[in-house]
Amino acid sequence: MRDITQLSPKQIRDLIRKGKWDKPTAGLAMGYAQANLVILPQKNAFDFLLFCQRNPKPCPLLEVLESGKFQPGFLSLDADIRTDIPRYHIYQKGNLHSTVKDIKSFWKPDFVSFLLGCSFSFEEALLRAKIPVRHIEENKNVSMYISSIPCKPAGVFHGPLVVTMRPIPLEQVTRTVQITSRYAFVHGAPIHIGDPSKIGIRNLKQPDFGDPVTIRKGETPVFWACGVTPQAVVMKAKPDFCITHAPGHMFISDLLNEELAIL
Amino acid sequence: MRDITQLSPKQIRDLIRKGKWDKPTAGLAMGYAQANLVILPQKNAFDFLLFCQRNPKPCPLLEVLESGKFQPGFLSLDADIRTDIPRYHIYQKGNLHSTVKDIKSFWKPDFVSFLLGCSFSFEEALLRAKIPVRHIEENKNVSMYISSIPCKPAGVFHGPLVVTMRPIPLEQVTRTVQITSRYAFVHGAPIHIGDPSKIGIRNLKQPDFGDPVTIRKGETPVFWACGVTPQAVVMKAKPDFCITHAPGHMFISDLLNEELAIL
Repeated sequence: MRDITQLSPKQIRDLIRKGKWDKPTAGLAMGYAQANLVILPQKNAFDFLLFCQRNPKPCPLLEVLESGKFQPGFLSLDADIRTDIPRYHIYQKGNLHSTVKDIKSFWKPDFVSFLLGCSFSFEEALLRAKIPVRHIEENKNVSMYISSIPCKPAGVFHGPLVVTMRPIPLEQVTRTVQITSRYAFVHGAPIHIGDPSKIGIRNLKQPDFGDPVTIRKGETPVFWACGVTPQAVVMKAKPDFCITHAPGHMFISDLLNEELAIL
Repeated sequence: MRDITQLSPKQIRDLIRKGKWDKPTAGLAMGYAQANLVILPQKNAFDFLLFCQRNPKPCPLLEVLESGKFQPGFLSLDADIRTDIPRYHIYQKGNLHSTVKDIKSFWKPDFVSFLLGCSFSFEEALLRAKIPVRHIEENKNVSMYISSIPCKPAGVFHGPLVVTMRPIPLEQVTRTVQITSRYAFVHGAPIHIGDPSKIGIRNLKQPDFGDPVTIRKGETPVFWACGVTPQAVVMKAKPDFCITHAPGHMFISDLLNEELAIL
């Protein structure tokens, strides 16, 4: 196989569809936006769409496929979200039922699919500006924390905002705000800068998800809304049925991150 | 009565609630965001919410009140959308049934209310930057045109993008893009600059809605998505029942336009 990092989104989706790639998608199709997936039955869809409207920072909707549709029309024109993600999680009443590489056999005509932006997009922009992204440097998963900030509830969906943290050198904090602000559709500007206790985080060394990373002298922790938030909120609501991508195994779109930037 | 233009949003809403102000809201509570209103039965709500998600430029959702709720929780904490708008239009199957000053007697527990941003917010920012807003100078209604750009459909909702046009001196076009880009939640950046025929407009002197305005030598027409779009789309879909604000008679919120700016 050719070096997969050199392949186009379409070529990678093709490999995934054929079952030839079932690993995480970080580092693939650099420059192109990747998306989180949440699939819910129609009866939960209005409430979840409203939850995303009310909480755009953790839930930056890139595309919603109405009842029964499995082909995006904005993020790609030739994809099938039932087969083009490396691994899916199937949940029943909030419990993980199975991890699968294809959801065709689970598909129902009342499924509504939500594709949400992810922070890979702005991390690439930070790296281009020579701003360090510590977990990438240390080859770890990003540090994630359950904050004390409540999301705005909608119907059955409610819960705290989950945040990611990246340590940023003090002299680069302003630039970091400027750069990430351009990516409003992929978690956008930081939600908090500095003292973690202000947003209910006691110990940065003990993230709730992901790995702890090194914070160097002269660096401040900077926090962004995290795409784990909607997944946590959905699990908590225990819908009869739900399908998501497996963490890190994202949908690779044909849209450039630059096409999602607001300015 | 004191000069109404000097009153706070709360004071103006109080006058409106008591039936003491039933005129347009342009020029009132300067600095504060005003909102368009669309109320639909729950059965149409998912499709309309999805339409807004897919067409954020003409449909910049500021707040959605779920089934039966009539008190906003974001735009204001003490308002009642059944009484706090000067005039409402009641539609049955897409036809105007009546114009009323209070919708309490029409209210049903399955009504979902959508409050959408309006261009007053960015016009104020243009004026502050000494960029002319011709229809205000000429004391007219803004020029509106049905463009050839289709909105992205959602369920029963579909139709063309309606745009507003403001003539801008060529040397101020870049600044105009910069300033209005900050107001992404109130129709945001222009959707087109220059030659009207590119977006299907034949004659700027014959707007589809509103009034024609003078275009001076050295000025170019600049086009923005218009809040008439969702109203036109809803009328076309002929839902059993729908309530909107009467044109120009908006909901005055407690949020400053600056609080809605993205940068």
